[in-house]
Amino acid sequence: MQGSILYCGDTELNGAASYLAGLMTHWGWKFDYVPSHIPMTTALLDTPRSLLILSDYPALQFSRDCQQLAIKKIEQGCGLLMIGGWESYHGLGGDWDGTMLGSILPVDIQTTDDRVNFPQSAWLLPACDHEITADRPWRTCPPAIGGMNQVRAKAAATVVLEAHAYAVKSAERQNQGDPVLSLTPQEVRPALVVGQHGTGRTASFLSDVAPHWVGGLVDWGLPRVTGQAAGGPAIEVGHDYAQLWKQLLSWTAASGTANS
Amino acid sequence: MQGSILYCGDTELNGAASYLAGLMTHWGWKFDYVPSHIPMTTALLDTPRSLLILSDYPALQFSRDCQQLAIKKIEQGCGLLMIGGWESYHGLGGDWDGTMLGSILPVDIQTTDDRVNFPQSAWLLPACDHEITADRPWRTCPPAIGGMNQVRAKAAATVVLEAHAYAVKSAERQNQGDPVLSLTPQEVRPALVVGQHGTGRTASFLSDVAPHWVGGLVDWGLPRVTGQAAGGPAIEVGHDYAQLWKQLLSWTAASGTANS
Repeated sequence: MQGSILYCGDTELNGAASYLAGLMTHWGWKFDYVPSHIPMTTALLDTPRSLLILSDYPALQFSRDCQQLAIKKIEQGCGLLMIGGWESYHGLGGDWDGTMLGSILPVDIQTTDDRVNFPQSAWLLPACDHEITADRPWRTCPPAIGGMNQVRAKAAATVVLEAHAYAVKSAERQNQGDPVLSLTPQEVRPALVVGQHGTGRTASFLSDVAPHWVGGLVDWGLPRVTGQAAGGPAIEVGHDYAQLWKQLLSWTAASGTANS
Repeated sequence: MQGSILYCGDTELNGAASYLAGLMTHWGWKFDYVPSHIPMTTALLDTPRSLLILSDYPALQFSRDCQQLAIKKIEQGCGLLMIGGWESYHGLGGDWDGTMLGSILPVDIQTTDDRVNFPQSAWLLPACDHEITADRPWRTCPPAIGGMNQVRAKAAATVVLEAHAYAVKSAERQNQGDPVLSLTPQEVRPALVVGQHGTGRTASFLSDVAPHWVGGLVDWGLPRVTGQAAGGPAIEVGHDYAQLWKQLLSWTAASGTANS
């Protein structure tokens, strides 16, 4: 990667940010971190960056000047990844709709509360073949998520993952055996959408990287992976969860055409 | 209820404890709270109590004297509820196996790591009719959980809820339609077990009240319920999740026979 990662949001390193920061530390990646309650500065942006990650980082923390500078960096090759949550996209206090920076994402952000909860889970499945999702056990073990932001993919963007929601119902016990659960398809929503702005790659993940919307995805795959960022608690997550984030961040940080 | 609730664990009010503390505040219930990193004292126990809740509160915080006093209170009618998590039961740092207080729970606690993750979700279903689980939509909308502690129910105890784990697989797309998910039953584990010690009721919930193991359960049912404990952030959860906890805490706090 050319330049370091700037990771913003997920409350603080002692909170939800412990997951992604713990993974990046585990991989030996360099990154700067900005908690959700600290405003962005032009100084933080005006340094060589490979990737800007916004995850539960409210739009009100990003001044007009900072947004313009971020967009210039992305046009020049820095990647942009927004990860879902209550303070991402519209959410409940994300308010990225109608912003300059939000408008270069590969999705159209709703102007009203876009939070969708899955009390019975939804599952992630690939919508196409892509290097971000390569080598994971999607067919044999699709991971569950607990919620997401609802968006529309832009016409020129590529939907890489979809969330498949099903209604789960329990049938009567037969002959005193165990109850039997059944699945009925409900809806399919974009869960990972990728695009391009200038020479920078853009990506929208619509579920979360951390509890609670991340759901079972955080424990996806063996062996278990441990990590700990300076200033955060130790995390323990699943191998395929870690690999998916490594592949998503690596792809988005690499400038070039979004179809490669 | 006779006496107030003593709620211990779930890190702190500004963390996982915001859920149950937020609900109890929403209901107007009185409770004292002890964070996971603060040791128990005899003074906290030696006051009229209706219910002692241990949730991710490590055994090492509970001295031998405090355990003896707590057991005496339970024999006299105070309820005891342990809620699952990495620092409950054995867990990863719960270490309640082999303790005096842990031994009066209605389950046998493992002597090794008892954590079970469900990357694809498991679902809660009733194992019998019980007032704790009454009036919730178990058949039409069983809620998902993300993980739990693995225990065995004691012979004299009552299993009220079970966790049903299924393998979820994706079939090939047919005629370019959506992929079809299928369920195969895997295992059934006790998820809520109740019993009695003296005149006090005892209950073991094996999943968590807060992310991440709580899974979709936290968003179970409409309308949404909001609450905020003094010293904690606002929470927003599902109606059936809130009602299940209200019924579980109410039943356990009421002294009397466990079968009523």
